[in-house]
Amino acid sequence: MSSSTSPIGIFDSGIGGLTVLKEIYGELPQEHTIYLGDTARVPYGIRSPETVTRYSFENTRFLSAKQIKILVIACNTASSVSLEALRTNFPVPVIGVIEPGAKAAADATRNRKVGVIGTEATVRSNSYTRAIRALDSAIEVFSIPCPLFVPIVEEGWTDDVITEMVAERYLSSVREKGIDTLVLGCTHYPLLKPVLSRVMGDGVRLIDSAIETAREIRGTLESLSLLNRSTGHANHEFYVTDAPQKFLSVGERFLGRKIEHIEKTKLEMEV
Amino acid sequence: MSSSTSPIGIFDSGIGGLTVLKEIYGELPQEHTIYLGDTARVPYGIRSPETVTRYSFENTRFLSAKQIKILVIACNTASSVSLEALRTNFPVPVIGVIEPGAKAAADATRNRKVGVIGTEATVRSNSYTRAIRALDSAIEVFSIPCPLFVPIVEEGWTDDVITEMVAERYLSSVREKGIDTLVLGCTHYPLLKPVLSRVMGDGVRLIDSAIETAREIRGTLESLSLLNRSTGHANHEFYVTDAPQKFLSVGERFLGRKIEHIEKTKLEMEV
Repeated sequence: MSSSTSPIGIFDSGIGGLTVLKEIYGELPQEHTIYLGDTARVPYGIRSPETVTRYSFENTRFLSAKQIKILVIACNTASSVSLEALRTNFPVPVIGVIEPGAKAAADATRNRKVGVIGTEATVRSNSYTRAIRALDSAIEVFSIPCPLFVPIVEEGWTDDVITEMVAERYLSSVREKGIDTLVLGCTHYPLLKPVLSRVMGDGVRLIDSAIETAREIRGTLESLSLLNRSTGHANHEFYVTDAPQKFLSVGERFLGRKIEHIEKTKLEMEV
Repeated sequence: MSSSTSPIGIFDSGIGGLTVLKEIYGELPQEHTIYLGDTARVPYGIRSPETVTRYSFENTRFLSAKQIKILVIACNTASSVSLEALRTNFPVPVIGVIEPGAKAAADATRNRKVGVIGTEATVRSNSYTRAIRALDSAIEVFSIPCPLFVPIVEEGWTDDVITEMVAERYLSSVREKGIDTLVLGCTHYPLLKPVLSRVMGDGVRLIDSAIETAREIRGTLESLSLLNRSTGHANHEFYVTDAPQKFLSVGERFLGRKIEHIEKTKLEMEV
């Protein structure tokens, strides 16, 4: 059984969810966390909804066995296609990154024109469009898949003339639509904020789902009386399904601090 | 039991191996083929050797059950890290893409300075360097990982100013070493030949492993009396582990012809 001192469970396809974990550290410093990066099967953004959902179930079973008190899907693709199924099939509260980002975008826009950028799977799922328009059906949503952004961030070219050209290529069409708000619908994208700001211009507000998601987690834990009130040292465990060394070296850039300990694990797979 | 009329089995992590299949069609038009793209777990180039080898075994078991007469690992990463283990554990002849490319490079170089470009895993494995220097230990080999090239090719930006800038970034250091031969150590890269030629200049010969591998397959089948001498219509089967529609739409650009029929399949997984 989980309790208020139980950990928050977080999974992502790989490393991107660390931008969400970073905001959880900031918002909820007293909480224990367990992070699972499914690096043996990353990236999810190019896969079919069924396959992403199967992987999400396997990840959730792994974290559930560790008595987590809340599950965070720190991956836009998995949140887009698997959130409902996870909520239905697991007893723990489940938070995705789509709804918090959508809410923040609906609050931020003045002219009711919102852009969303993400992976192919996230954009194809239309989940941001649906979530934003459920809040205000008068908002127009323009979505663009940006498949090169993830490898560019992992290459470390976050502030680079090439990245600026790629961003210009992807974003010029939504800029021309006159959007005033742009949702960064992929957990890698917060590292591109300086470039995205330059390309979009001052008039466009960037919505970072990671920050919004951390606030949502706090709210949910509060409402369930599950905030950890103890003042001891918070434990942070990390598991990956492959290549822990690479996770360490790239991940510390995402997390903005050292990762003390990481374990490679096997998931119980559905055959 | 396989015979001369049995199919050639080919696997790749995804779509890239189709450049090898295209050359097999050209070199051996009478042969039946079965192609497996492990699109549920692509890309292999960022994974650990153990994980790539596990995936390679699962792919090979799938193809072996279809009575193939020869196995082609149409993936540089899998060839780099799994070839020996597959040869040891399966009774069928196994051809990878490294040895044919290494042989062609050793033959082509005049100044004994060879460059190799590929994924992180291929470069880290040092397999081209070892294979080239086993043929001529006086050859200097300079290897560079180019992780952005695969997503760029899949985005379709094969002849593009951005691609040229990325290529310039990756390749300027090997160009300065004075190489006269560059091995395209990834099955996606043949689609970048025009850009790579411009960046490297006329003095540098590009080695396309796909062409060399098709020749090696012919030679091996000949020596084992396994060439298909019948003149009937050749069958070409395609299987993927995820997202067949995307495979079709991107794959036809790699293969240069229509893919008539494709099936999504499950692999028997090691747990």
